[in-house]
Order: sequence, then C-alpha cells, then structure tokens
Amino acid sequence: MTETAALPQPFLAGLEAIFAGRLHLGQAMRRQHGGSESHFATVAPDAVVFAHSTEEVVALVKLCNEHLVPLIPYGAGTSIEGNTTPVRGGVCLDLSEMDAIVEVNADDLDCTVQAGVRREQLNEALRHSGLFFPIDPGANATLGGMASTRASGTNAVRYGTMREAVLSLRVVTPDGRDIRTSRRARKSAAGYDLTRLMIGSEGTLGVITEITLRLHGIPEAISAAVCSFETLAGAVDTVVQTIQCGVPIARVEILDDMQMRAINRWSKLDYPELTTLFFEFHGTEASVAEQAETVRELASANGGGEFKWSNLPEERSKLWEARHQAYYAAVGLRTGAVGWPTDVCVPISRLAECIGETKRDLEGASIPATILGHVGDGNFHVVFVLDPDSKEEAAEAEHLNRRLVERALAMDGTCTGEHGIGLGKQDWLVAELGEAVDLMRTIKRALDPKDLFNPGKIFSL
Amino acid sequence: MTETAALPQPFLAGLEAIFAGRLHLGQAMRRQHGGSESHFATVAPDAVVFAHSTEEVVALVKLCNEHLVPLIPYGAGTSIEGNTTPVRGGVCLDLSEMDAIVEVNADDLDCTVQAGVRREQLNEALRHSGLFFPIDPGANATLGGMASTRASGTNAVRYGTMREAVLSLRVVTPDGRDIRTSRRARKSAAGYDLTRLMIGSEGTLGVITEITLRLHGIPEAISAAVCSFETLAGAVDTVVQTIQCGVPIARVEILDDMQMRAINRWSKLDYPELTTLFFEFHGTEASVAEQAETVRELASANGGGEFKWSNLPEERSKLWEARHQAYYAAVGLRTGAVGWPTDVCVPISRLAECIGETKRDLEGASIPATILGHVGDGNFHVVFVLDPDSKEEAAEAEHLNRRLVERALAMDGTCTGEHGIGLGKQDWLVAELGEAVDLMRTIKRALDPKDLFNPGKIFSL
Repeated sequence: MTETAALPQPFLAGLEAIFAGRLHLGQAMRRQHGGSESHFATVAPDAVVFAHSTEEVVALVKLCNEHLVPLIPYGAGTSIEGNTTPVRGGVCLDLSEMDAIVEVNADDLDCTVQAGVRREQLNEALRHSGLFFPIDPGANATLGGMASTRASGTNAVRYGTMREAVLSLRVVTPDGRDIRTSRRARKSAAGYDLTRLMIGSEGTLGVITEITLRLHGIPEAISAAVCSFETLAGAVDTVVQTIQCGVPIARVEILDDMQMRAINRWSKLDYPELTTLFFEFHGTEASVAEQAETVRELASANGGGEFKWSNLPEERSKLWEARHQAYYAAVGLRTGAVGWPTDVCVPISRLAECIGETKRDLEGASIPATILGHVGDGNFHVVFVLDPDSKEEAAEAEHLNRRLVERALAMDGTCTGEHGIGLGKQDWLVAELGEAVDLMRTIKRALDPKDLFNPGKIFSL
Repeated sequence: MTETAALPQPFLAGLEAIFAGRLHLGQAMRRQHGGSESHFATVAPDAVVFAHSTEEVVALVKLCNEHLVPLIPYGAGTSIEGNTTPVRGGVCLDLSEMDAIVEVNADDLDCTVQAGVRREQLNEALRHSGLFFPIDPGANATLGGMASTRASGTNAVRYGTMREAVLSLRVVTPDGRDIRTSRRARKSAAGYDLTRLMIGSEGTLGVITEITLRLHGIPEAISAAVCSFETLAGAVDTVVQTIQCGVPIARVEILDDMQMRAINRWSKLDYPELTTLFFEFHGTEASVAEQAETVRELASANGGGEFKWSNLPEERSKLWEARHQAYYAAVGLRTGAVGWPTDVCVPISRLAECIGETKRDLEGASIPATILGHVGDGNFHVVFVLDPDSKEEAAEAEHLNRRLVERALAMDGTCTGEHGIGLGKQDWLVAELGEAVDLMRTIKRALDPKDLFNPGKIFSL
C-alpha cells in the first residue's frame, strides 16, 4: 500500500476499520478506477474500496460526511462521458463485488439484484426461468451503473430504457439513510417518483445498492434480419416507416458504410460496404413472420437489397455478430487509436435529416468516423477514431461533435440519448434545458449539501 | 363578488390586474372548486382564477410569493383523495380554460397540449390522424390533472401510465420560473428526470401548463370479450396467467358479483351476477385473433363461462358499456349515497389472495361495497357505498380500508396504484416508504421553501 497524502489519517483508519483487505491505496488499482473507455484523461481516486453490503456503504457514507471526503460509486467502469472520473479526488466505491441475485419472482416477472450484478450474469441466471432482462447497452455493464446513467441500447425501442425497467431501488442517501424508493407493485401513485429521480442521477444523489427490475418472458419466436441499402436515406426512411406503422419491432440498428467497412476488416467478413439495418423481431411464430414481412416490404420500397432473414438461433447470432463488435471494429480502423463515441437523439421525423447532415460533415472530415445507432428511438452515435496524441484531431472531433449536438438540439432533440452528462456534456445540458438545470442544482444542494456524492458531474454547483 | 376577508386587499388588487373578469370570489364558484368526487368534505378556496396562459400563471405565482398566499392548481376536479382540497385556503388556479391542442406531430407519434385539455377532447381531435392517446382513468379528466396524480386506468397494462405517456412538461416553478423539463426526443439521459419528478407530485412542486404526450397508432384490429366466472379465484387466475404468458392484452378489468348486480340495476341489463372479466385486444387481425384464443383457453380452464367476443365497433362498445358505468352504478346502489373508492396495487402473484381476503372482509360488512379493478397491473378498487350522514358507516369503511391497505403493504404492494396520496393516504405513504418520505419532504422544502404550492398534500412538512 502506498501512502495517499490527500486523505487524512483518521479517515484512512476509518476505511481500514470498515473494509480491511478491501481497501486499496496502490497506484495500479487507483489508476484503473480513474480511467475511462472513452477519450477522457485518467484521474486516479485517492483510494478504492470494494463494498460487500449496503451496511458497509452506509458506514462509508457516514465516514465521508465526517471528514468531507468525496465518494464516487463505481460499477464496471464502462461509462463513456467521464461519469466516474474523480475530478475532486476522494474514495472510489467499487460495487462490483456486490453481485448477488437477491431474488427472482418468476410469477411477477421481476427480480431484485445487488448493484454489482452485470447484465450478462443476470440473463445467464435467468436462463432456465423462461424470462430475460432486455436492456442491452452493448457493454457488459453493472445494473447499478446502468440505472445511474439511465442506460438503454438496442432493445429500448420495444422494451424501454432503465427508466421503464426499474421497479424500485435501494439507495444510501448522502446523509447515510438506507431507503427503498418504491414497493414491488407494477405501478404506484405514492408520492414523488424517487425511483426515476435516482435513475440517471449518476451517483450524485445516492448510492444505488439494490435494484428491482421488470423481466419479460422469452418470446415464443425470435427472428433476425439484415438488409443493405444503396442510400442512407433509404435505410432511415425504412426505420421511420416501421415505427410509424406500429410494428412492435424488438431491435433496429443502423450501421453506415464506414462502420460496415470497419466490421469487415475487424472480423474478416464480407458484408456489402453499404448502410445496413439489423432487425430483430419478438413474438409468437405468426406475429414474428407478419412483422418481418411488413418490414421487408418497407425496405424493398426504400431501395433495400436482399433481406437476409433467419429464426434459427445460430444463424441469428451470426447475422447480428457484426453489430455486436461495431465499437471495437470502429476503433480498430487505426492502430493505437482511441474512440470517442458521441450520442444524440432526435424526434424520429427529423432522423433522416439529422443523420444525413451529419454524414456530410463526416465526409469532409480528416479523421475516420463511423455512424451507428438505435434508430428506432431516433438515437445514434458517431464514433470518432482519434490519434490520442493529436491535438488537431481532438479539436476537429470537438468541432464536429459541437455541430452534431447543435443540430440535434435545433431539432428538439437531446444532447444525450443514453450515455449521460458526466463531464462531457455539461455545457450542452444547459443549452438543452436552460433554467431547468437550476432546479437540478437545487435538488442536489438539498440532498447533498456537502457536495460529496460524485461531485462535479452533470453540472458544477 | 363577495368580500373574502382571508385575502389581503393588495393581493386581491394584484389578482384583478392579472385576471380581471376571470377572478371569482363568490361562494358558489369557490365551493364548487373545494369539493370532491369522493367522500372528502368541501373546503372552499378564498378565490378562484381561470388562467389563459403560462405567462398569467407566472404572474400569479410571483404574486402569491409576495403575499405568502397558497395556490392550488385545479383541472376537472375529478381526483378522489382530496388532492385539490384547499386545506390552508388560498387561490384555486383553474386551468380548464387552457384547453388548446398546441401541436400534433403525427410522424413522431406525439402531441403537445395545454394542461386543461381533457382526454376525450384530445382523442376527438386526433380522430382523423390515425393516432390515439391511450390513458383512460375513467373520468374525463384534464391531462394536467392526470399528469399531476400519475393517473393510469384501464389501458395501463399495455400502454403504461402517465409516467410512460409524458415526454416533456412545461412547468411554472414555485419561484416563478417557466421551464421545460425535457426535449421531444423519445429518450434522453440528460440530467435529473424532472419530468418524472413532476408527474405524481400533485401540484406541490410546480404548476404544469403544457404536456407533450406520446401517442399510439390506432390498432389495425380491436376486439373485445366478456366472460363470467363461477369463482372469483378463477377470474383472477385467468388474468394472472394471461400476463405471465406474455399476451399483450390492451385491457383486462375485473368486476365482482356485487358490481355486476349494481350495473344490471343501474343500466337495466341482464349480465350474470357473477365475477366478470372484460377484455380488449389490440393488434393486427391475426394477432388479435391469436390473443383472444389464448385467453379464451385460459378462461375456460379456470371455470369461465361463455366467452362473448366481438371485433365490430358497436358490439364492442356494447360489451364494454357496463364497465364504463361501474362507479356510478355502484354509488347508485343506495339513494343519496356517497362513494368512497379505495385503491391498492400488489405484485400480480399475490392478487388472487389479496382480492380473495378483501372479498371475505366485505361479505362480513354491513355496508354495500363493490370490487373492480385494472387487474392486469395488480391494481383494484373497493367502492364503499355510504350513507353520508352515518358516522358508523364511515368508521366501518375506514376500518375495512385500513385492513385492505395493510394487506396490500404486507404483500409488498402500494397504498395507491393510481389515485395519489392527496389527503387520504398520507399515513399510508409513511407506512409504505418510511424514511424515503423524508427525502420527498427535503425536495419539497428546497423547491417550495414557503410551502405555497398545494400545501398539506402528500405529506405535512
């Protein structure tokens, strides 16, 4: 263990008393917890602790209050807007070892898990129950982290985001209370919606330690399809019309030509290097066939090529394989590159225009960039693939991202569909919501008057 | 106009300046705005104003701040937990004349309306767009009121509650700011979820003046069905199995034998006086037929009688007619009676037990009471039919309601599925959520430090 000058000795003694061998002060562990999967600089916290119970979290919160030390809740570290970077130092509270599945209520289609459970682990545990948890942000994130950033991903068009998926939370508040935000009933009108207030608050209002989640029955039938388009507009129009027709599609993802090229190189595949849509349909056998046929007709009318379709598990996985590797494939376009994934969401009637203008911007850029997105919701990402040592490239990406966010806001969209504000979107939050951000600040000051819970995130006080 | 001693003269002059002929101080108008559709005593506000714009609401809020006068937002007055009763006097802000449909974005499946628009008016206006707004709490409530109480009703099992239906709100805050809580994108991770914080806050945190709502395409096919059951358990088990099978049912309502008797008397009909389920299915022709067949089989296996089914609009309306009149039919069981509708919601695995025990309680009671509910969500109501002059009956209803709520809480349910806390459920809110209610109080104090917005509701400070 290395001495950490920033933390007072009595505080360290308190950490020792609570966590013993699960307190880490060494450089390697601290730096690992101060990093990011995106382009943000690493900032090491002063200490890392691994909690094993809500009671330990309560004890930590009381200790931090006593010594005015900041506390940053941490899950899998897969967030990408610098959401866990300890900008004011303090203790990183790693919850990944609180990974018990507390209960599965199969008859109620819900379960309760500790915050450190990862989504793949949950679905593995549910495998024989006939149920599944649909939210899939790509990364194998923790459920606590997903709740904290209001994550969503590919299935949100059908199953909603973490906002809809969470029934109740167990939360340790900044004053050290251990509360439950709601009962397990499907709906309730009992007072302020503390559950939704905590979801998306990025650890600034409380530490989530347990989550009660809605589950869904594994559909009787699942089918997948892939279709390439001559034009970007044809692909986007197909999606918009699918949504407007009310087809209850489970997933629909867009990948542009550059992204498909990246995938072919990364995975040695031979997809046409054209804008491509990946679909998934859930339902009864009859319903899935009906949905796929409707979408096939729409795709065909919009210049779609062959509609590759399968309802067999292995073939489905193969069809979707490319999509799952998209981010790493994009970053792999350049050796030693770093990825910067942006994130906007617009009303669907503006989606074709928004993606089209963005594509034209990227075509004039000097840095490689791909487009991919959960377009059924109007949500898409540009992934800039940057030389980490080039200030010019960073500035160009900054400029392109500024144009992208301004475009989305001008269309009554949001600066972040699913990644959160973290450090990266704070100015845009104000551009998006104006004085409403002052309300958020008022709530933060009221619930965390010492500004100890993940300080400096979402907004500065 | 009658003099209202409770309000200072300069305040009244301020009201005159803002509202002129839309300021009312007369007894009749004041009493009408202090009443309730339920058993709560009428308490007249000191004044009633009808706002015509958000700017007028801002001016009123500033005036109330200056003179420390409470303000109670009011829509159609159809809430039933005393949610708008002016317990500390003040000004009733009637928003029912802010009834413009601001815009319909058919391509985005959304619309923006002023707070005073009623749900039937909205659906009438949408009639030729191919879209509809699904939330139906029974009463022809205003959308502002529905958002304020987190209303839901018969369609929630498929389309969600006001929590899911609202994309964004325009809100005047207690310090007189005119904010918008979110953009029009389908999803966003931009900071704290102020939209959901306002929904269900019953006017205690802000005055909602505009609401942006998700709409849905009118389904290609709709069918309705009605089925009677020899036993209450058979009916409830049918519902539970329907949900567990993942049938995407649009509505499923239970009415007990007493409720069916009330309906036969009220509407001169001849339904079997047995526990009855009312179903509605939405989808494509094929999907609706498939759903209905699955449910018919489940009903039959649970002792259901004839499954009366129709997909013709007039026949469907006829099948559902009885359900729509249920509350008034119940109250009509006794001449001059007053209805007291209770409201609990439990995890669906406990629903049969919860309704069964409640029914046994009611069978031993001396006052008539019916059971009806949106059982697909685990939500149901007992309607007590009371002699308004009998203290004994009020006490007995109180006792039975206490047993009902305690039963629901013991099953990890909620004391209110959709009616809100208002005056009637304040003790139960604390029983349900414990110290989490202190968080709500902290938020209230921070956003409304003078306690002027619908004071005394949800909790006492």
